[in-house]
Amino acid sequence: MQHTDTSLGAGVMARLDALARASAEPDALTRLYLTPAHDAAGRQVTGWMEEAGMAVRRDAAATVIGRYEAAFPGAPTLLLGSHIDTVRDAGRYDGNLGVVVAIAAVGALHRAGERLPFAIEVLAFGDEEGVRFPVTLTGSRALAGLIRPDFLEARDADGVSLAQALTAFGGDPAGLAGLARDPAETLGYLEVHIEQGPVLEDADLPVGIVTAIAGASRLVVTVEGRAGHAGTVPMRLRRDALAAAAEMVLAVEAEADATPDLVATVGQIEVPRGAVNVIPALTRFSLDLRSPSDAVRHAALARLRATWDDIAARRGVTVSAQGSYDEPAAACAPGLMDALDAGIVRLGLAPLRLPSGAGHDGLALAGLCPIAMLFVRCAGGLSHSPAESVTEADVDVATRLLVDVLRHLRPESVRP
Amino acid sequence: MQHTDTSLGAGVMARLDALARASAEPDALTRLYLTPAHDAAGRQVTGWMEEAGMAVRRDAAATVIGRYEAAFPGAPTLLLGSHIDTVRDAGRYDGNLGVVVAIAAVGALHRAGERLPFAIEVLAFGDEEGVRFPVTLTGSRALAGLIRPDFLEARDADGVSLAQALTAFGGDPAGLAGLARDPAETLGYLEVHIEQGPVLEDADLPVGIVTAIAGASRLVVTVEGRAGHAGTVPMRLRRDALAAAAEMVLAVEAEADATPDLVATVGQIEVPRGAVNVIPALTRFSLDLRSPSDAVRHAALARLRATWDDIAARRGVTVSAQGSYDEPAAACAPGLMDALDAGIVRLGLAPLRLPSGAGHDGLALAGLCPIAMLFVRCAGGLSHSPAESVTEADVDVATRLLVDVLRHLRPESVRP
Repeated sequence: MQHTDTSLGAGVMARLDALARASAEPDALTRLYLTPAHDAAGRQVTGWMEEAGMAVRRDAAATVIGRYEAAFPGAPTLLLGSHIDTVRDAGRYDGNLGVVVAIAAVGALHRAGERLPFAIEVLAFGDEEGVRFPVTLTGSRALAGLIRPDFLEARDADGVSLAQALTAFGGDPAGLAGLARDPAETLGYLEVHIEQGPVLEDADLPVGIVTAIAGASRLVVTVEGRAGHAGTVPMRLRRDALAAAAEMVLAVEAEADATPDLVATVGQIEVPRGAVNVIPALTRFSLDLRSPSDAVRHAALARLRATWDDIAARRGVTVSAQGSYDEPAAACAPGLMDALDAGIVRLGLAPLRLPSGAGHDGLALAGLCPIAMLFVRCAGGLSHSPAESVTEADVDVATRLLVDVLRHLRPESVRP
Repeated sequence: MQHTDTSLGAGVMARLDALARASAEPDALTRLYLTPAHDAAGRQVTGWMEEAGMAVRRDAAATVIGRYEAAFPGAPTLLLGSHIDTVRDAGRYDGNLGVVVAIAAVGALHRAGERLPFAIEVLAFGDEEGVRFPVTLTGSRALAGLIRPDFLEARDADGVSLAQALTAFGGDPAGLAGLARDPAETLGYLEVHIEQGPVLEDADLPVGIVTAIAGASRLVVTVEGRAGHAGTVPMRLRRDALAAAAEMVLAVEAEADATPDLVATVGQIEVPRGAVNVIPALTRFSLDLRSPSDAVRHAALARLRATWDDIAARRGVTVSAQGSYDEPAAACAPGLMDALDAGIVRLGLAPLRLPSGAGHDGLALAGLCPIAMLFVRCAGGLSHSPAESVTEADVDVATRLLVDVLRHLRPESVRP
């Protein structure tokens, strides 16, 4: 079954181009939480939501919320959306795509005069990237009742607290606690987002169903050996911290290669005060470990620690690993995944399932309701870059799929 | 055969303590070429040389030279000595030990009224460490006729040229070319030096015979892969520059482990602009490769380049290696090594032979005459540090050995 009219996709792409002009920089897209660029994007989104038949408000956390009522009173609410904040020098699709696609889907229902057995709220979160403040997911955490008091004291590089910035923006720090939704009234959260990875491109598919948002561990590993003159210490008398670390880095890679549903990355390494002619006494490297299964991730980390200890003991060096981060995974809901699956099959496509290695607002909302995500293929897996790119055809597939899934979704299949 | 009178060693140690006070810093030993500290040390050495019966002068390169005439005119000259410049915050034995031991040995001959079938010149070079100017071995290169014209234009951190500094010190830039010795009149060069490595300590021996001053290659290796999100790119789709570099670092170690007479060190590694959550696109590391055999070193480097290429091809990354340095090895002379060997055996010790991984003035003097070096055990193999340490007993062994070897040395056995 081929579909050649891409008018929904064309409309979404045109809006994304327009939205990208709401930026702190004239020649790049930079839109941080609670800044004038954020305000400009929120006003743009508000207009499109109203045009799509939604009642729009901005909540205490500065999330823009458009509500499309159900066919009858007392129906639960399905949450759609994504975020409109960006990293510095960003692409125009990360976050924004999910907001604009959700608005387009509701707009299609509105134009057809359709009401569903659930209300829809399209959410445009403002703090997913966590660039401005050392906290993140403020909007979605508030809906899930997960805002800790110290959140509001987080400060940006200029010393402005989140509470101050929220107040200046017209938000309400004291109102965050009151944003918590009633789980009984919340059907679920469904987000469309670019994949930010190469799996769909590699599989030649426009969209894929996310199985879980991966949990993550981050560590700094320190290897201590013994310095020595590069010319005068025989190989057998060395305790080379870098050679040991190199073996540990390869052990990380081997562990991830051998373990399904695990990725592991050493992104940083250094020999502090190293010199070309000195045997390294000290080496530090980072580890980023992610899996949709917390059990898989924790077991892998335990095996890695044991392997590192073995390498260190054999080489006469010491190794220690400090964890800086341990975020649990959020599994996607079977009912929502199956609904996406059925919609993809109706479009004549293969329903590929894949984990999300990156974090998203669903991590927080999983504490409130069933969550799901639909990934859209992006060129080269690139994101957080002006080179971030999606095709109009793929965006059209995603938008039509979302309309179709909304039309077929039965609340009882999501929360049986 | 045990010897318990360590009076020669005690005298040398006392002089080394006194000499260490000639420094640019009150609480550390820093003595750079052509500085007031260098001048002070040269004057101190001059006094000890005169006391040992030598005629002393300072040549155009500021090398202090003490001459002890032979038993008859027309005899060749044996060169002894080492250097009196130091690194910053140095130990007191590197270089200085060899000068003071040589003076003590000549003093012993002088006190006994002995003349040998060769003259002796004790040389106190001033530019072995190469700290002040971006050139090194100025004094020994001059004797070997190896001064290139551009040498004199080398400048220190204050912009002072070597020619200017030499002139201000009382040296003679124009006179360097005239310092070249006649090989026919030069019997050889014999230097006593701390090992700067752990081999003698590991073998429980006070002294060892150097087989060659190692040649060295230095390279910077660049691995280029493809950046990616640490959470979203599956392992099989990665081109991780650091993982590839880790495999290359271990290949360096394996090559040196498997190759006699080769040491190889990766002392520096970096992932430029690396982040904990980004797959490394670029990794750079250094290589320092040394061997007493240039053939061994060049063959090892060729094998390493081939191995790196294989690793890169298998991983879909690229590798390139730029050489910054390629210094040939200087072999020690069999006649001088045998003379040291016989002396060590006469002392009742095992005559261990080992390469010098560090560079020395002998590298330059090998272009003039047969060279040899006697290494003295140093604690922990440490050098270039205030913690550099030797024992009085070991220094006594080295000094008595040198006296004994001088007494037994036959010119025809060195240059048959």
